[in-house]
Amino acid sequence: MRNFIGIDLGGTNVRAAVVTEEGEIVGQARTETLAEKGPEAVLERMALVAREAVGNSGLELSGISACGVGSPGPLDARTGVVLFTPNLPGWDHVPVAERMTDLLGVTSFLENDANSAGFGEWWLGAGRDSSEMLMYTLGTGVGGCAIIRGKLHRGSDQMAGHLGHAILVPDGRQCNCGARGCLERYCAATAVAREATEATEEGEDTGLGHLEPDEITAKAVFDAAEAGSEYSRELIGRTGRYLGIGIATMVSAIDPQVVVIGGGMVAAGDMLLGPCRQAVRDLALKPANERVKIVPAELGEDAGIIGAAGLAMRRLDGEKAE
Amino acid sequence: MRNFIGIDLGGTNVRAAVVTEEGEIVGQARTETLAEKGPEAVLERMALVAREAVGNSGLELSGISACGVGSPGPLDARTGVVLFTPNLPGWDHVPVAERMTDLLGVTSFLENDANSAGFGEWWLGAGRDSSEMLMYTLGTGVGGCAIIRGKLHRGSDQMAGHLGHAILVPDGRQCNCGARGCLERYCAATAVAREATEATEEGEDTGLGHLEPDEITAKAVFDAAEAGSEYSRELIGRTGRYLGIGIATMVSAIDPQVVVIGGGMVAAGDMLLGPCRQAVRDLALKPANERVKIVPAELGEDAGIIGAAGLAMRRLDGEKAE
Repeated sequence: MRNFIGIDLGGTNVRAAVVTEEGEIVGQARTETLAEKGPEAVLERMALVAREAVGNSGLELSGISACGVGSPGPLDARTGVVLFTPNLPGWDHVPVAERMTDLLGVTSFLENDANSAGFGEWWLGAGRDSSEMLMYTLGTGVGGCAIIRGKLHRGSDQMAGHLGHAILVPDGRQCNCGARGCLERYCAATAVAREATEATEEGEDTGLGHLEPDEITAKAVFDAAEAGSEYSRELIGRTGRYLGIGIATMVSAIDPQVVVIGGGMVAAGDMLLGPCRQAVRDLALKPANERVKIVPAELGEDAGIIGAAGLAMRRLDGEKAE
Repeated sequence: MRNFIGIDLGGTNVRAAVVTEEGEIVGQARTETLAEKGPEAVLERMALVAREAVGNSGLELSGISACGVGSPGPLDARTGVVLFTPNLPGWDHVPVAERMTDLLGVTSFLENDANSAGFGEWWLGAGRDSSEMLMYTLGTGVGGCAIIRGKLHRGSDQMAGHLGHAILVPDGRQCNCGARGCLERYCAATAVAREATEATEEGEDTGLGHLEPDEITAKAVFDAAEAGSEYSRELIGRTGRYLGIGIATMVSAIDPQVVVIGGGMVAAGDMLLGPCRQAVRDLALKPANERVKIVPAELGEDAGIIGAAGLAMRRLDGEKAE
């Protein structure tokens, strides 16, 4: 049985795990990223936490076949270089795969975080046994991933899978990417929080008036909805419907068996997913509209480390990052 | 050198050609579909026109390796069965591939018409040398095709590639498919003609007032634009921009090298494609937005017969219709 390291690099925390070739986590560790110390210090912390995970697994580094890193992008999975990334100051063309290979003495590969999580869900989570899967992760933004014909789809030059930047509303809300109307401006957890904050400040009966503005998170909106706030319930339903409109477009284009929804917001359950599914039924082409499954992610925050390890296994076995 | 038959089945005409394995047309023929006579009569006409094309090529049927049929759908390329099709009355689960194999004594395969045309453009036309290509054909509706990693993408159950049914405008115009806001309700030639007809009837200065309502086609709108009609120029530009919004979503999802625009409307050239390209630059994610090429189709109405023949070659050589 071969073993792989999976690392999930985030702006706040770094997680690492040792994952068997069957996808079982046999050891893990976590530390703070301390992004402000710059790329080389972060890379050393990544190596440290990877060694700790290996120690916790009862294995040694010599028993690890390869290491996969899931990182914020944009990055180039072929060369293993992070081009830059808004959440990690000072990162400018950092050769992550090469540096991790040096620091650990283990062949290392790089993939973007949304693709790592999507691959994890496809390999062992809510998308398993599908040939085509889409994943939307609702967080600060909306991460996307497309599995096509049983392979992570990276596109002609590594820019595929950005499902959160679908143009949902022509001339709609301004997005950080420079475009207007992107799906993530309507469906990210931050978009929900922002809309609820503005409505509360304008005096609407949101059920959130007892909170400070910075306490109004997507989670607080769900709590208010469960406590009976009509406004909050309507906002979550509308968010689900917007997500469904974006999914419908991709269902008619790609015809996946399954669409996986990840991120903390799926805790809202059918309050979010019900209107989402209804929009897909109403708007995607028959009969794919009835057949496609819209399901919550299953692996939670382990999706990224599992997926990074799984992708490293595929790359080691010769799959090209194309 | 192997030779293949490509057949393009339309509601009005059937075209057939003999195409070499390098894509050269060495003989062709055309006849009326006479769809009202029902499926078996149409199948016999298809066989007749295929034999005529073979005769015109100087070959005999025994020198043909396989036959490909591009047909309106929905259909199942795996089984070669047309499920039904709005333009061909009486077609209900017609086993086209099996019947053509019988009638010609040549192994036959079935594909939908938009995919056949898209494959033709990818093989020998505006999309050649790409690994990822999207095609939009602007006609009565908007046909779509996606080539992904060098293969026609049919999806998990044959329903992929319907790019004309992207939801462009939430709660927008009613589409024949049952949804609202589909791209084809804004970008098809018929959508342009309808909008111009309505504006003319409402007394707007469209430059089309001298025409009868049924003479106001997309072509007439282009002619009016070239003759100086501000309304018509604006309508074509707006149509191009809508198309670009839909393309931007797919560029961020799939990251193609090239997007091919087919159908008679591309005769409008930069009046249509200029605003389309600008919308993609403005709305797709960097750097794919700058890199992707938006180009007119090159094979005209030959795309379908060439593509049907090329797909038959691939199928004969063992490629699965998945």
